[in-house]
Amino acid sequence: MRLKLTLAYDGTGYSGWQIQEKPNPPRTIQGAVEAALFQLAGQKIRVHGAGRTDAGVHALGQVCHFDAPDKNWDWQKRLNAVLDPQIRVIRTELAAPTFHARKDAIAKTYFYDLWTEPAFVLPSLRNFCWHCGKINLTEIQAGLKDLSGKHDFSAFQNTGTPVKSGIREIYSISLEPLPKSGYFPPALYRMTIRGNGFLKQMVRNIAGYLVWIGKGKCAWSDLPAIIAAKSREKLPSPTAPAKGLTLAKVDYE
Amino acid sequence: MRLKLTLAYDGTGYSGWQIQEKPNPPRTIQGAVEAALFQLAGQKIRVHGAGRTDAGVHALGQVCHFDAPDKNWDWQKRLNAVLDPQIRVIRTELAAPTFHARKDAIAKTYFYDLWTEPAFVLPSLRNFCWHCGKINLTEIQAGLKDLSGKHDFSAFQNTGTPVKSGIREIYSISLEPLPKSGYFPPALYRMTIRGNGFLKQMVRNIAGYLVWIGKGKCAWSDLPAIIAAKSREKLPSPTAPAKGLTLAKVDYE
Repeated sequence: MRLKLTLAYDGTGYSGWQIQEKPNPPRTIQGAVEAALFQLAGQKIRVHGAGRTDAGVHALGQVCHFDAPDKNWDWQKRLNAVLDPQIRVIRTELAAPTFHARKDAIAKTYFYDLWTEPAFVLPSLRNFCWHCGKINLTEIQAGLKDLSGKHDFSAFQNTGTPVKSGIREIYSISLEPLPKSGYFPPALYRMTIRGNGFLKQMVRNIAGYLVWIGKGKCAWSDLPAIIAAKSREKLPSPTAPAKGLTLAKVDYE
Repeated sequence: MRLKLTLAYDGTGYSGWQIQEKPNPPRTIQGAVEAALFQLAGQKIRVHGAGRTDAGVHALGQVCHFDAPDKNWDWQKRLNAVLDPQIRVIRTELAAPTFHARKDAIAKTYFYDLWTEPAFVLPSLRNFCWHCGKINLTEIQAGLKDLSGKHDFSAFQNTGTPVKSGIREIYSISLEPLPKSGYFPPALYRMTIRGNGFLKQMVRNIAGYLVWIGKGKCAWSDLPAIIAAKSREKLPSPTAPAKGLTLAKVDYE
Protein backbone atom coordinates (compact mmCIF):
# COMPACT_ATOMS: atom_id res chain seq x y z
CA MET A 1 0.00 0.00 0.00
CA ARG A 2 1.18 3.51 -0.81
CA LEU A 3 1.33 6.02 2.00
CA LYS A 4 1.49 9.79 1.77
CA LEU A 5 3.31 11.48 4.65
CA THR A 6 3.29 15.16 5.53
CA LEU A 7 6.48 16.15 7.36
CA ALA A 8 7.65 19.11 9.39
CA TYR A 9 11.33 19.52 10.09
CA ASP A 10 13.91 21.83 11.56
CA GLY A 11 16.57 21.53 8.86
CA THR A 12 19.36 22.95 11.06
CA GLY A 13 22.37 20.65 10.89
CA TYR A 14 20.91 18.53 8.07
CA SER A 15 22.41 18.48 4.58
CA GLY A 16 19.00 18.98 3.00
CA TRP A 17 16.30 16.58 1.95
CA GLN A 18 18.04 14.38 -0.55
CA ILE A 19 19.97 11.29 0.46
CA GLN A 20 23.55 11.26 -0.80
CA GLU A 21 24.70 7.81 -1.84
CA LYS A 22 28.40 7.95 -1.05
CA PRO A 23 30.85 6.76 1.59
CA ASN A 24 30.31 8.62 4.86
CA PRO A 25 27.02 10.16 3.68
CA PRO A 26 25.98 13.35 5.49
CA ARG A 27 22.81 13.53 7.56
CA THR A 28 19.78 14.17 5.37
CA ILE A 29 16.04 14.27 6.01
CA GLN A 30 15.29 11.59 3.42
CA GLY A 31 18.06 9.44 4.87
CA ALA A 32 16.64 9.82 8.38
CA VAL A 33 13.12 8.83 7.24
CA GLU A 34 14.44 5.83 5.32
CA ALA A 35 16.54 4.78 8.32
CA ALA A 36 13.45 5.01 10.54
CA LEU A 37 11.46 2.87 8.07
CA PHE A 38 14.27 0.33 7.98
CA GLN A 39 14.26 0.23 11.77
CA LEU A 40 10.50 -0.37 11.83
CA ALA A 41 9.99 -2.66 8.84
CA GLY A 42 13.35 -4.41 8.62
CA GLN A 43 13.69 -3.67 4.93
CA LYS A 44 14.97 -0.91 2.69
CA ILE A 45 12.08 1.32 1.63
CA ARG A 46 12.60 4.18 -0.79
CA VAL A 47 10.95 7.48 0.13
CA HIS A 48 10.06 9.99 -2.60
CA GLY A 49 9.78 13.66 -1.61
CA ALA A 50 7.79 16.43 -3.28
CA GLY A 51 10.82 18.71 -3.37
CA ARG A 52 14.49 18.72 -2.49
CA THR A 53 15.02 21.25 0.26
CA ASP A 54 18.56 22.59 0.60
CA ALA A 55 20.82 22.17 3.61
CA GLY A 56 19.43 24.19 6.53
CA VAL A 57 16.00 24.70 4.94
CA HIS A 58 12.96 23.81 7.05
CA ALA A 59 9.54 22.35 6.35
CA LEU A 60 6.06 22.65 7.80
CA GLY A 61 4.43 20.66 5.01
CA GLN A 62 6.92 18.62 2.98
CA VAL A 63 5.13 15.65 1.39
CA CYS A 64 6.60 12.26 0.56
CA HIS A 65 5.32 8.84 -0.38
CA PHE A 66 6.51 5.26 0.00
CA ASP A 67 5.22 1.76 -0.48
CA ALA A 68 4.58 0.34 2.95
CA PRO A 69 4.52 -3.31 3.97
CA ASP A 70 0.87 -4.27 4.35
CA LYS A 71 0.57 -3.92 8.12
CA ASN A 72 -2.20 -2.50 10.25
CA TRP A 73 0.14 0.02 11.86
CA ASP A 74 -0.19 3.58 13.08
CA TRP A 75 2.73 4.72 10.94
CA GLN A 76 2.69 8.26 12.30
CA LYS A 77 3.06 7.06 15.86
CA ARG A 78 5.71 4.48 15.04
CA LEU A 79 7.77 6.84 12.89
CA ASN A 80 7.62 9.69 15.42
CA ALA A 81 8.76 7.27 18.11
CA VAL A 82 12.02 6.51 16.29
CA LEU A 83 12.71 9.73 14.35
CA ASP A 84 14.87 12.61 15.61
CA PRO A 85 12.51 15.20 17.21
CA GLN A 86 13.78 17.65 14.57
CA ILE A 87 11.67 15.63 12.09
CA ARG A 88 7.98 14.97 12.74
CA VAL A 89 5.31 13.17 10.75
CA ILE A 90 2.35 15.49 11.06
CA ARG A 91 -0.08 13.45 8.93
CA THR A 92 -0.28 10.05 7.25
CA GLU A 93 -2.80 9.19 4.55
CA LEU A 94 -3.45 6.16 2.39
CA ALA A 95 -2.70 7.22 -1.20
CA ALA A 96 -3.71 5.85 -4.57
CA PRO A 97 -1.22 3.19 -5.83
CA THR A 98 -0.10 5.62 -8.56
CA PHE A 99 0.26 8.70 -6.31
CA HIS A 100 3.62 10.43 -6.67
CA ALA A 101 4.63 13.16 -4.20
CA ARG A 102 6.71 15.11 -6.74
CA LYS A 103 5.05 14.41 -10.08
CA ASP A 104 1.49 14.96 -8.83
CA ALA A 105 2.20 18.23 -7.00
CA ILE A 106 0.33 21.13 -8.61
CA ALA A 107 1.61 23.94 -6.37
CA LYS A 108 4.06 24.64 -3.57
CA THR A 109 4.03 27.33 -0.93
CA TYR A 110 7.18 28.59 0.77
CA PHE A 111 7.69 30.98 3.65
CA TYR A 112 10.77 33.16 3.88
CA ASP A 113 11.15 34.91 7.25
CA LEU A 114 13.07 38.16 7.70
CA TRP A 115 14.21 39.61 11.03
CA THR A 116 14.40 43.38 10.72
CA GLU A 117 15.60 44.60 14.13
CA PRO A 118 19.29 45.39 13.54
CA ALA A 119 20.70 44.93 17.05
CA PHE A 120 19.69 41.32 17.79
CA VAL A 121 17.79 38.24 16.64
CA LEU A 122 15.48 36.56 19.13
CA PRO A 123 17.36 33.42 20.27
CA SER A 124 14.43 31.10 19.53
CA LEU A 125 14.35 32.33 15.92
CA ARG A 126 18.10 32.35 15.25
CA ASN A 127 17.97 29.32 12.93
CA PHE A 128 14.67 30.30 11.29
CA CYS A 129 15.17 33.74 9.76
CA TRP A 130 17.57 35.99 7.90
CA HIS A 131 18.88 38.81 10.07
CA CYS A 132 18.56 41.35 7.27
CA GLY A 133 18.07 44.52 9.35
CA LYS A 134 15.81 47.42 8.50
CA ILE A 135 13.89 47.28 5.23
CA ASN A 136 11.22 49.50 3.68
CA LEU A 137 8.17 47.26 3.73
CA THR A 138 5.87 49.42 1.62
CA GLU A 139 8.54 49.81 -1.07
CA ILE A 140 8.81 46.03 -1.35
CA GLN A 141 5.07 45.48 -1.28
CA ALA A 142 4.52 48.05 -4.05
CA GLY A 143 6.15 45.88 -6.74
CA LEU A 144 5.26 42.33 -5.73
CA LYS A 145 2.55 42.17 -8.39
CA ASP A 146 5.30 42.49 -11.04
CA LEU A 147 6.89 39.23 -9.86
CA SER A 148 3.68 37.24 -9.83
CA GLY A 149 2.38 35.52 -12.94
CA LYS A 150 4.21 33.49 -15.57
CA HIS A 151 7.80 34.54 -16.33
CA ASP A 152 11.10 33.04 -17.32
CA PHE A 153 12.81 33.15 -13.92
CA SER A 154 16.24 31.98 -15.14
CA ALA A 155 17.84 35.09 -13.62
CA PHE A 156 16.66 33.87 -10.22
CA GLN A 157 18.14 30.40 -10.69
CA ASN A 158 21.46 29.31 -9.24
CA THR A 159 23.57 26.89 -11.21
CA GLY A 160 22.80 23.22 -10.70
CA THR A 161 20.97 20.46 -12.52
CA PRO A 162 20.05 21.90 -15.95
CA VAL A 163 16.32 22.35 -16.54
CA LYS A 164 14.53 22.50 -19.90
CA SER A 165 12.75 25.76 -19.23
CA GLY A 166 13.02 28.60 -16.75
CA ILE A 167 9.35 29.45 -17.10
CA ARG A 168 7.41 29.19 -13.87
CA GLU A 169 4.18 30.71 -12.64
CA ILE A 170 3.91 32.49 -9.29
CA TYR A 171 0.30 32.34 -8.17
CA SER A 172 0.73 34.68 -5.23
CA ILE A 173 3.46 36.48 -3.32
CA SER A 174 3.14 38.65 -0.22
CA LEU A 175 5.29 40.14 2.54
CA GLU A 176 3.62 40.87 5.87
CA PRO A 177 4.69 41.37 9.51
CA LEU A 178 4.00 38.33 11.66
CA PRO A 179 2.11 38.76 14.94
CA LYS A 180 4.55 39.65 17.66
CA SER A 181 5.47 37.24 20.43
CA GLY A 182 6.21 39.00 23.67
CA TYR A 183 6.64 42.70 24.10
CA PHE A 184 8.75 43.66 21.12
CA PRO A 185 7.70 45.70 18.14
CA PRO A 186 6.88 43.29 15.31
CA ALA A 187 10.32 42.70 13.80
CA LEU A 188 9.60 39.47 11.92
CA TYR A 189 8.28 39.73 8.37
CA ARG A 190 7.15 36.74 6.34
CA MET A 191 7.29 36.39 2.58
CA THR A 192 4.71 33.84 1.43
CA ILE A 193 5.12 32.64 -2.14
CA ARG A 194 2.99 30.08 -3.96
CA GLY A 195 3.68 28.81 -7.45
CA ASN A 196 3.51 25.82 -9.75
CA GLY A 197 7.19 25.10 -9.27
CA PHE A 198 10.47 26.78 -8.44
CA LEU A 199 13.93 26.73 -9.98
CA LYS A 200 17.02 25.96 -7.91
CA GLN A 201 17.22 28.49 -5.04
CA MET A 202 14.65 30.66 -6.83
CA VAL A 203 12.77 31.46 -3.62
CA ARG A 204 15.98 32.46 -1.86
CA ASN A 205 17.01 34.61 -4.82
CA ILE A 206 13.61 36.31 -4.77
CA ALA A 207 13.93 36.91 -1.02
CA GLY A 208 17.39 38.40 -1.56
CA TYR A 209 16.03 40.66 -4.29
CA LEU A 210 13.15 41.87 -2.09
CA VAL A 211 15.54 42.71 0.74
CA TRP A 212 17.82 44.60 -1.63
CA ILE A 213 14.79 46.59 -2.81
CA GLY A 214 13.82 47.23 0.81
CA LYS A 215 17.31 48.60 1.45
CA GLY A 216 17.30 50.79 -1.65
CA LYS A 217 20.08 48.81 -3.33
CA CYS A 218 17.77 47.64 -6.13
CA ALA A 219 14.65 49.13 -7.72
CA TRP A 220 11.54 47.47 -9.07
CA SER A 221 12.04 49.39 -12.30
CA ASP A 222 15.01 47.11 -13.05
CA LEU A 223 12.96 43.93 -12.88
CA PRO A 224 11.94 43.70 -16.58
CA ALA A 225 15.60 43.92 -17.65
CA ILE A 226 16.64 41.34 -15.04
CA ILE A 227 13.96 38.90 -16.19
CA ALA A 228 14.79 39.52 -19.84
CA ALA A 229 18.50 38.83 -19.24
CA LYS A 230 17.74 35.26 -18.07
CA SER A 231 21.09 35.21 -16.27
CA ARG A 232 21.86 35.03 -12.56
CA GLU A 233 24.75 37.39 -13.19
CA LYS A 234 22.29 40.17 -13.98
CA LEU A 235 20.59 39.80 -10.61
CA PRO A 236 22.47 42.26 -8.34
CA SER A 237 21.18 40.88 -5.03
CA PRO A 238 22.50 37.95 -2.96
CA THR A 239 20.91 34.54 -2.49
CA ALA A 240 19.16 34.76 0.88
CA PRO A 241 20.45 32.29 3.51
CA ALA A 242 18.88 28.84 3.70
CA LYS A 243 17.83 29.12 7.35
CA GLY A 244 15.05 31.65 6.60
CA LEU A 245 13.28 29.30 4.18
CA THR A 246 10.47 26.87 4.98
CA LEU A 247 8.58 24.59 2.60
CA ALA A 248 5.13 25.32 3.98
CA LYS A 249 2.68 23.33 1.84
CA VAL A 250 2.42 21.13 -1.23
CA ASP A 251 -0.88 21.03 -3.08
CA TYR A 252 -2.36 18.14 -5.07
CA GLU A 253 -5.49 17.83 -7.20
CA MET B 1 27.97 53.87 35.80
CA ARG B 2 25.17 51.40 36.35
CA LEU B 3 23.66 49.75 33.30
CA LYS B 4 20.32 47.97 33.00
CA LEU B 5 20.26 45.18 30.42
CA THR B 6 17.20 43.44 29.03
CA LEU B 7 18.03 39.91 27.90
CA ALA B 8 16.35 37.26 25.79
CA TYR B 9 17.64 33.71 25.92
CA ASP B 10 16.96 30.19 24.78
CA GLY B 11 17.65 28.38 28.06
CA THR B 12 18.05 24.97 26.40
CA GLY B 13 21.25 23.34 27.62
CA TYR B 14 21.88 25.99 30.28
CA SER B 15 21.71 25.21 34.00
CA GLY B 16 19.53 28.23 34.63
CA TRP B 17 20.32 31.86 35.37
CA GLN B 18 22.39 31.66 38.50
CA ILE B 19 26.12 31.16 38.43
CA GLN B 20 27.29 28.20 40.51
CA GLU B 21 30.54 28.84 42.31
CA LYS B 22 32.10 25.39 42.39
CA PRO B 23 34.79 23.38 40.59
CA ASN B 24 33.66 22.51 37.06
CA PRO B 25 30.72 24.92 37.19
CA PRO B 26 27.90 24.17 34.73
CA ARG B 27 26.96 26.57 31.96
CA THR B 28 24.66 29.32 33.25
CA ILE B 29 23.23 32.49 31.74
CA GLN B 30 24.68 34.73 34.44
CA GLY B 31 28.04 33.00 34.03
CA ALA B 32 27.95 33.57 30.27
CA VAL B 33 27.15 37.28 30.67
CA GLU B 34 29.89 37.72 33.27
CA ALA B 35 32.36 35.88 31.05
CA ALA B 36 31.44 38.18 28.16
CA LEU B 37 31.96 41.25 30.36
CA PHE B 38 35.31 39.90 31.49
CA GLN B 39 36.29 39.37 27.87
CA LEU B 40 35.33 42.96 27.01
CA ALA B 41 36.45 44.85 30.09
CA GLY B 42 39.31 42.69 31.35
CA GLN B 43 37.92 42.64 34.86
CA LYS B 44 35.45 40.61 36.90
CA ILE B 45 32.07 42.36 36.91
CA ARG B 46 29.16 40.98 38.93
CA VAL B 47 25.79 40.87 37.17
CA HIS B 48 22.57 40.96 39.21
CA GLY B 49 19.45 39.45 37.66
CA ALA B 50 15.80 40.23 38.37
CA GLY B 51 14.97 36.56 38.83
CA ARG B 52 16.63 33.17 38.87
CA THR B 53 15.27 31.19 35.99
CA ASP B 54 15.58 27.39 36.29
CA ALA B 55 17.57 25.13 33.99
CA GLY B 56 15.90 25.02 30.57
CA VAL B 57 13.71 28.08 31.22
CA HIS B 58 13.77 30.84 28.61
CA ALA B 59 13.53 34.62 28.68
CA LEU B 60 12.23 37.34 26.42
CA GLY B 61 12.65 40.08 29.01
CA GLN B 62 15.00 39.10 31.85
CA VAL B 63 16.53 42.22 33.37
CA CYS B 64 19.93 42.55 35.03
CA HIS B 65 22.22 45.33 36.12
CA PHE B 66 25.94 45.79 36.57
CA ASP B 67 28.42 48.56 37.25
CA ALA B 68 30.24 49.23 34.02
CA PRO B 69 33.67 50.74 33.57
CA ASP B 70 33.14 54.32 32.47
CA LYS B 71 33.60 53.87 28.73
CA ASN B 72 31.74 55.36 25.83
CA TRP B 73 30.84 51.94 24.45
CA ASP B 74 27.81 50.49 22.68
CA TRP B 75 27.49 47.72 25.26
CA GLN B 76 24.64 45.98 23.41
CA LYS B 77 26.70 45.66 20.26
CA ARG B 78 29.86 44.59 22.07
CA LEU B 79 28.08 42.04 24.27
CA ASN B 80 26.10 40.54 21.39
CA ALA B 81 29.33 40.18 19.43
CA VAL B 82 30.89 37.92 22.07
CA LEU B 83 27.85 36.18 23.61
CA ASP B 84 26.47 32.81 22.50
CA PRO B 85 23.61 33.52 20.02
CA GLN B 86 21.33 31.72 22.49
CA ILE B 87 21.68 34.85 24.66
CA ARG B 88 20.95 38.30 23.28
CA VAL B 89 21.00 41.75 24.80
CA ILE B 90 17.83 43.30 23.47
CA ARG B 91 18.15 46.65 25.24
CA THR B 92 20.69 48.61 27.30
CA GLU B 93 19.80 51.61 29.42
CA LEU B 94 21.71 53.85 31.77
CA ALA B 95 20.23 53.25 35.24
CA ALA B 96 20.25 55.25 38.44
CA PRO B 97 23.31 54.42 40.62
CA THR B 98 20.96 52.77 43.14
CA PHE B 99 18.91 50.77 40.62
CA HIS B 100 18.65 47.07 41.52
CA ALA B 101 17.22 44.60 38.99
CA ARG B 102 15.73 42.28 41.63
CA LYS B 103 14.89 44.58 44.55
CA ASP B 104 13.27 47.29 42.42
CA ALA B 105 11.09 44.94 40.36
CA ILE B 106 7.40 45.55 41.03
CA ALA B 107 5.94 42.85 38.78
CA LYS B 108 6.98 39.95 36.57
CA THR B 109 5.20 38.40 33.63
CA TYR B 110 5.76 34.80 32.55
CA PHE B 111 4.51 32.86 29.55
CA TYR B 112 3.89 29.14 29.74
CA ASP B 113 3.28 27.52 26.34
CA LEU B 114 1.27 24.32 25.88
CA TRP B 115 1.22 22.19 22.72
CA THR B 116 -2.11 20.40 22.51
CA GLU B 117 -1.90 18.29 19.34
CA PRO B 118 -1.25 14.76 20.66
CA ALA B 119 0.54 13.19 17.69
CA PHE B 120 3.51 15.55 17.27
CA VAL B 121 5.20 18.76 18.38
CA LEU B 122 6.35 21.17 15.69
CA PRO B 123 10.14 20.73 15.51
CA SER B 124 10.85 24.46 15.88
CA LEU B 125 8.88 24.52 19.15
CA ARG B 126 10.22 21.31 20.67
CA ASN B 127 12.30 23.10 23.32
CA PHE B 128 9.72 25.84 23.97
CA CYS B 129 6.51 24.11 25.04
CA TRP B 130 5.03 21.29 27.07
CA HIS B 131 3.58 18.56 24.86
CA CYS B 132 0.56 18.13 27.11
CA GLY B 133 -1.96 16.83 24.53
CA LYS B 134 -5.64 17.68 24.38
CA ILE B 135 -7.05 19.95 27.08
CA ASN B 136 -10.44 21.56 27.60
CA LEU B 137 -9.68 25.25 27.17
CA THR B 138 -13.02 26.65 28.33
CA GLU B 139 -12.93 24.52 31.47
CA ILE B 140 -9.53 25.99 32.37
CA GLN B 141 -10.54 29.53 31.50
CA ALA B 142 -13.69 29.30 33.66
CA GLY B 143 -11.74 29.22 36.94
CA LEU B 144 -8.71 31.41 36.30
CA LYS B 145 -10.28 34.28 38.25
CA ASP B 146 -10.09 32.11 41.39
CA LEU B 147 -6.30 31.96 41.12
CA SER B 148 -5.81 35.68 40.62
CA GLY B 149 -5.55 38.04 43.56
CA LYS B 150 -3.65 37.71 46.82
CA HIS B 151 -3.30 34.18 48.24
CA ASP B 152 -0.88 32.07 50.18
CA PHE B 153 0.52 30.01 47.30
CA SER B 154 2.63 27.68 49.47
CA ALA B 155 0.87 24.65 47.93
CA PHE B 156 2.29 25.74 44.56
CA GLN B 157 5.85 26.04 45.88
CA ASN B 158 8.48 23.36 45.43
CA THR B 159 11.03 22.87 48.18
CA GLY B 160 14.09 25.06 48.08
CA THR B 161 15.34 28.18 49.77
CA PRO B 162 12.90 28.88 52.64
CA VAL B 163 10.88 32.08 52.26
CA LYS B 164 9.23 34.10 55.01
CA SER B 165 5.79 34.14 53.49
CA GLY B 166 3.94 32.24 50.77
CA ILE B 167 1.65 35.17 50.10
CA ARG B 168 1.86 36.51 46.57
CA GLU B 169 -0.50 38.53 44.40
CA ILE B 170 -1.38 37.48 40.87
CA TYR B 171 -2.44 40.58 38.96
CA SER B 172 -3.65 38.72 35.90
CA ILE B 173 -3.70 35.24 34.42
CA SER B 174 -5.01 34.09 31.07
CA LEU B 175 -4.82 31.12 28.71
CA GLU B 176 -5.35 31.77 25.00
CA PRO B 177 -4.51 30.06 21.68
CA LEU B 178 -1.59 31.70 19.88
CA PRO B 179 -1.96 32.69 16.24
CA LYS B 180 -1.14 29.73 14.07
CA SER B 181 2.03 29.55 12.00
CA GLY B 182 1.54 27.66 8.77
CA TYR B 183 -1.46 25.55 7.93
CA PHE B 184 -2.15 23.71 11.16
CA PRO B 185 -5.08 24.18 13.47
CA PRO B 186 -3.96 26.41 16.36
CA ALA B 187 -2.40 23.84 18.69
CA LEU B 188 -0.29 26.19 20.80
CA TYR B 189 -1.87 27.78 23.87
CA ARG B 190 -0.16 30.41 26.00
CA MET B 191 -0.69 31.00 29.68
CA THR B 192 0.26 34.57 30.57
CA ILE B 193 0.65 35.27 34.25
CA ARG B 194 1.63 38.55 35.89
CA GLY B 195 2.21 39.03 39.59
CA ASN B 196 4.25 40.85 42.20
CA GLY B 197 6.47 37.83 42.71
CA PHE B 198 6.51 34.06 42.44
CA LEU B 199 7.57 31.25 44.75
CA LYS B 200 9.98 28.54 43.63
CA GLN B 201 8.50 26.83 40.53
CA MET B 202 5.12 28.41 41.31
CA VAL B 203 4.41 29.25 37.67
CA ARG B 204 5.23 25.70 36.58
CA ASN B 205 3.04 24.29 39.36
CA ILE B 206 0.18 26.53 38.26
CA ALA B 207 0.67 25.43 34.64
CA GLY B 208 0.60 21.78 35.75
CA TYR B 209 -2.58 22.41 37.70
CA LEU B 210 -4.28 24.09 34.74
CA VAL B 211 -3.42 21.19 32.45
CA TRP B 212 -4.74 18.70 35.00
CA ILE B 213 -7.99 20.67 35.12
CA GLY B 214 -8.09 20.69 31.32
CA LYS B 215 -7.75 16.92 31.32
CA GLY B 216 -10.44 16.42 33.98
CA LYS B 217 -7.93 15.08 36.54
CA CYS B 218 -8.50 18.08 38.85
CA ALA B 219 -11.43 20.42 39.40
CA TRP B 220 -11.54 24.11 40.22
CA SER B 221 -13.80 23.28 43.16
CA ASP B 222 -10.76 21.76 44.92
CA LEU B 223 -8.71 24.97 44.73
CA PRO B 224 -9.79 26.52 48.07
CA ALA B 225 -8.78 23.35 49.94
CA ILE B 226 -5.46 23.16 48.07
CA ILE B 227 -4.64 26.79 48.90
CA ALA B 228 -5.73 26.32 52.53
CA ALA B 229 -3.49 23.25 52.93
CA LYS B 230 -0.36 25.33 52.13
CA SER B 231 1.47 22.11 51.22
CA ARG B 232 2.81 20.97 47.85
CA GLU B 233 1.73 17.46 48.78
CA LYS B 234 -1.92 18.51 48.57
CA LEU B 235 -1.48 19.68 44.99
CA PRO B 236 -2.36 16.62 42.89
CA SER B 237 -0.88 17.85 39.61
CA PRO B 238 2.73 17.68 38.37
CA THR B 239 5.22 20.51 38.05
CA ALA B 240 5.11 21.45 34.37
CA PRO B 241 8.44 21.00 32.52
CA ALA B 242 10.91 23.90 32.48
CA LYS B 243 11.09 24.14 28.68
CA GLY B 244 7.55 25.60 28.36
CA LEU B 245 8.37 28.56 30.62
CA THR B 246 9.57 32.02 29.55
CA LEU B 247 10.28 35.05 31.72
CA ALA B 248 8.58 37.57 29.47
CA LYS B 249 8.86 40.91 31.25
CA VAL B 250 9.97 42.59 34.46
CA ASP B 251 8.29 45.84 35.45
CA TYR B 252 9.79 48.73 37.43
CA GLU B 253 8.32 51.95 38.75
